[in-house]
Amino acid sequence: MPSIPPPASVLVVGTVAFDTIETPFGRAERVLGGSATYASLAARLLTPDVRLSAVVGGDFPESHAEALRQRGVDTEGLARDPEGETFFWAGRYHHDLNHRDTLATHLNVLATFEPELPESYRDTRVLCLGNLDPTVQMSVLDQVTGPDGSGPTLVVMDTMNYWIEKTPGPLGEVLERVDVLVINDAEARELADTPNLVRAAREIRERGPQTLVIKKGEHGALLFTGETEAPTVFAAPAYPLEEVLDPTGAGDVFMGGFAGHLARVGEVTDDAFREAVVVGSAMASHAVEAFGPQRMLELTEADVRQRVAAFHALSAIPARLVA
Amino acid sequence: MPSIPPPASVLVVGTVAFDTIETPFGRAERVLGGSATYASLAARLLTPDVRLSAVVGGDFPESHAEALRQRGVDTEGLARDPEGETFFWAGRYHHDLNHRDTLATHLNVLATFEPELPESYRDTRVLCLGNLDPTVQMSVLDQVTGPDGSGPTLVVMDTMNYWIEKTPGPLGEVLERVDVLVINDAEARELADTPNLVRAAREIRERGPQTLVIKKGEHGALLFTGETEAPTVFAAPAYPLEEVLDPTGAGDVFMGGFAGHLARVGEVTDDAFREAVVVGSAMASHAVEAFGPQRMLELTEADVRQRVAAFHALSAIPARLVA
Repeated sequence: MPSIPPPASVLVVGTVAFDTIETPFGRAERVLGGSATYASLAARLLTPDVRLSAVVGGDFPESHAEALRQRGVDTEGLARDPEGETFFWAGRYHHDLNHRDTLATHLNVLATFEPELPESYRDTRVLCLGNLDPTVQMSVLDQVTGPDGSGPTLVVMDTMNYWIEKTPGPLGEVLERVDVLVINDAEARELADTPNLVRAAREIRERGPQTLVIKKGEHGALLFTGETEAPTVFAAPAYPLEEVLDPTGAGDVFMGGFAGHLARVGEVTDDAFREAVVVGSAMASHAVEAFGPQRMLELTEADVRQRVAAFHALSAIPARLVA
Repeated sequence: MPSIPPPASVLVVGTVAFDTIETPFGRAERVLGGSATYASLAARLLTPDVRLSAVVGGDFPESHAEALRQRGVDTEGLARDPEGETFFWAGRYHHDLNHRDTLATHLNVLATFEPELPESYRDTRVLCLGNLDPTVQMSVLDQVTGPDGSGPTLVVMDTMNYWIEKTPGPLGEVLERVDVLVINDAEARELADTPNLVRAAREIRERGPQTLVIKKGEHGALLFTGETEAPTVFAAPAYPLEEVLDPTGAGDVFMGGFAGHLARVGEVTDDAFREAVVVGSAMASHAVEAFGPQRMLELTEADVRQRVAAFHALSAIPARLVA
């Protein structure tokens, strides 16, 4: 994979939504949410050129779009369907915050979302395909010509169990064109149909993505690079938090931070991927400290740097042991 | 805590058992097992003076005791009750190997086990209290005078949900006298009655153990040292294995490797504890690659060194990120 001249442009395609969130620690009613919201805010904190493609309904307040713009996100690709309603999700987290029940999913305008990228987005270098119908992901992939007509330099993708079960064909076609797949452990096991994550990683990487990140929530993340048969594995811990208020969006923040870091450093080496996992983890650990996107709307680069340093301290093995 | 002149003596108290193990990959019938077996074999690979205290029945073949001695374990404290039968455990692991059903637990001679330490064991410096009735753990603790009559230099302890639920009083008394508690995440949550591990760690450390290791199986381990209110946390990954044949004894091998490393280096600093967690994890990752104690009976120091190096590679964050 070629290196990317930094800072590279990042396009995040996904959902912009209203979320109603219940956790053991409180409730947030119809707050700004969606994968593209979280991921673009995260990426933008790291790199200047971050574009968003999503759709909202006539009920979407201009103040929310303005909040994204104030944080520097390019919202030219935020389509509005005045006749429709914005995608709505409601969920309730269990006591341990590791499990949640979905109480409502109203696709609304998302049901007919066919993103048409603005001209200004087509030269995107780093494409982040949020969790969406794989045919929509493919359509976006086809529209990005990249700076020289050969397509995006790096494609990062998320998906979920629903698409793995319902649309394996189209999902497989997108996977073939993806550089980095970022999914959670349950999704990896389901996608590869094996409980063992090392075997799952090999199976998944054989289908396309040269690089694989498996998110394990409070247990951190695994990064697979190098040869498929003899992978190089990096295990990042999760930051041990005493107060998790709301895990919503943590995975999207991770992907946005991951892609944002790569765009900033302009490298796609194993070291850069490791750094990107730590930066994404650091940002996700901040995101869960408040309800909805609140923390992401306030987060500073200094906050991220500080937590990245904490990740170093957290995982440092004394050098003497291998001396 | 004072440093320990290396190599320090280690005493492992626990069970020596017959195990019948079923996993999706095979079955082992009445093989040598028990926490003291696994832990003493692990410790002995790292440090020369490892003593074992346990009880077996008249059905225990001398060849098993001889196997322990051949690996250098001092079995003077292996009591034999010729009238009784050896502790027997049978379990079946689920598809993902993270869960198991206990099919049988016959305490047999363990039901009346009242260890009386040989004179030669009383000066022990590093005492490993395997998962046993806390009144038995306390009795052993009282019998160890240490080299100067003030008791063992370092007490490492394991326990399980059964004792947390059934004997909270005696368990609390032992905890007050323990330096390092090594338990798994479910036990930590139950002992502290909170799902959050950071809060659980604080609560547990307030009851006695200055150092706490929380084992998370395939997700690695957390080490809490330093101030109880503002702990220093170390997150060790688990080695990503493609073939786990039998997880039986992995936790005991971890504790034995942990204690063995501390005895070998004669230090109880944060760095030494981090190293001990990595060494314990490395040994446990070997142990699960074969059925029963087979791998532990063959393991070499070179195997351990090699895997410890792999742990470094696995968790190394590029230095540039904090430069």
